[in-house]
Amino acid sequence: MTNSPPVTLDDVRDAAAQIKGVAHRTPVLRSRTLDALVGAEVFLKCENFQRVGAFKFRGAYNTASRLAPEQAVKGIAAYSSGNHAQAVALAARELGTTAVILMPQDTPRSKMDATAGYGAEIVTYDRYNGDRVAIGEALAADRGLALIPPYEHPHVIAGQGTAALELIEEVGHLDALVVPVGGGGLIAGSATAAKALDTGIHVIGVEPEAGDDTKRSLEAGRRVSIPVPRTIADGQAAGIPGELTFSINQRLVDEIALVTDDQIREAMRMAFERLKIVIEPSGATALAALLSGRIHRIPARVGVIISGGNIDARRFAELCGT
Amino acid sequence: MTNSPPVTLDDVRDAAAQIKGVAHRTPVLRSRTLDALVGAEVFLKCENFQRVGAFKFRGAYNTASRLAPEQAVKGIAAYSSGNHAQAVALAARELGTTAVILMPQDTPRSKMDATAGYGAEIVTYDRYNGDRVAIGEALAADRGLALIPPYEHPHVIAGQGTAALELIEEVGHLDALVVPVGGGGLIAGSATAAKALDTGIHVIGVEPEAGDDTKRSLEAGRRVSIPVPRTIADGQAAGIPGELTFSINQRLVDEIALVTDDQIREAMRMAFERLKIVIEPSGATALAALLSGRIHRIPARVGVIISGGNIDARRFAELCGT
Repeated sequence: MTNSPPVTLDDVRDAAAQIKGVAHRTPVLRSRTLDALVGAEVFLKCENFQRVGAFKFRGAYNTASRLAPEQAVKGIAAYSSGNHAQAVALAARELGTTAVILMPQDTPRSKMDATAGYGAEIVTYDRYNGDRVAIGEALAADRGLALIPPYEHPHVIAGQGTAALELIEEVGHLDALVVPVGGGGLIAGSATAAKALDTGIHVIGVEPEAGDDTKRSLEAGRRVSIPVPRTIADGQAAGIPGELTFSINQRLVDEIALVTDDQIREAMRMAFERLKIVIEPSGATALAALLSGRIHRIPARVGVIISGGNIDARRFAELCGT
Repeated sequence: MTNSPPVTLDDVRDAAAQIKGVAHRTPVLRSRTLDALVGAEVFLKCENFQRVGAFKFRGAYNTASRLAPEQAVKGIAAYSSGNHAQAVALAARELGTTAVILMPQDTPRSKMDATAGYGAEIVTYDRYNGDRVAIGEALAADRGLALIPPYEHPHVIAGQGTAALELIEEVGHLDALVVPVGGGGLIAGSATAAKALDTGIHVIGVEPEAGDDTKRSLEAGRRVSIPVPRTIADGQAAGIPGELTFSINQRLVDEIALVTDDQIREAMRMAFERLKIVIEPSGATALAALLSGRIHRIPARVGVIISGGNIDARRFAELCGT
């Protein structure tokens, strides 16, 4: 037994080397308009421009590419209706192997098609009568596949941390880093990298108001479960933090801010009209917290992870068109 | 009298030096998805990320910043309901002087507000009973202002050419350059730079089908006037090419492609969903021509100017939300 942290800055650096040339080094966007609105220098790390349109590819590829060759040829598996599904599918294709993705039966056709478009096999289940973790594990065991979880894995967390690593390498010291929180993998990796590189940095997680399981858990000092959240931020609809991610976030996250669906919509609209970029609801929560005043003391230099941009034009029109 | 061209590569280089540090050097976007769809290597020069959200700032600032100091202090003027209005307003503010912008009475409130937001005075006129050029010239003469036309000026054209200059400097040889055509200033500047830097390059202009005045004019060998076009590409609703721009384009433009409003919408939607960027209708016509097959022989390496991104979320929802 040891007290060394499960993921370190060295792990994130190793992940950065592992994904180099396969994942994009995404741009850092600046905007005078945004700086004026927020009253700070804001640096947006744009994972909406990542492959598959979200940060998830970093962790999926870092994990899949480290499998033993005899395991890799047998294929990989994941359970996800969202960006992790496409990330694992693309990672498998890049590695010349196959992926099987377990998705709820009622997953929108466009998301199934996108995942199948990367060459993955889709297996569906009934989300009201099945436990995706149990079904996913059984499927993987049955077919001899390596299951890549969406956040509960050190290689996944280290991979997700590479976005913050790139950001700080590029822009230097930041007073605060604001990161969306779902299962907690992105912020666990981000905080691991940021706190090691820049000890004074304040790490702020952002959850949708209806999905405040990590905030409650940090306050309670233990993992708290909430009913499945109803929010437009579908990538952050976790009902309980991960065990591994929570152990990291308990140590490294300074604060959780909450945003309403209206504040998320406003941030998406602002990004569209002023920054000319597309952000999905979950990807916009950190920006929403900054713009809506839900972060109380905003320091001089603030990094923000824009975690994804997968939303179709029709859904954007529904959410932001009025 | 001389036969030397009214705008040369040296003029474009001078403009690039003049706007350096004030205008953005905009990013060049690549996309594997786009390359696969088009069957070529495509390089998108993203002027939607330019200041004021469009290439227009390049020409406006290049022109305004070259005024004699005694003229500059008296202020500048422009007639425009679109991106040129905001470009001239911001150029004036950057130069510490004032701008008066002549706009049709029925200009959308949001565009008037954006222009006023840069500190400009707005003067309105009745577009059905007034000639904007005559009113603009009278206003400028009356108040002692320097009128900056939207395209009929060598400094404006040279400024607009800096986007193509930056693109070719960054990515090297291109087989073709595809550029939206309205009054013809952007393509005149682009073609001037491109043909001088890269003699074999094929310069293709793109107009909305309903606004094909430049195509007709090039075919006729003289400037042809058409009725005011009805198209969603409001930045390309010119009824006749400029005199100066036409003289340049007649010499340097190889081909004009036409696109329908539906093809423009499809390109905007594709840019939104796959590239995660916002493009206004006029800004998307060059991309639309590539995607829709309206350009017949697409060579291996193609540059595309994405000329602007000024569209609000509500209008985008109307055009692309179904």
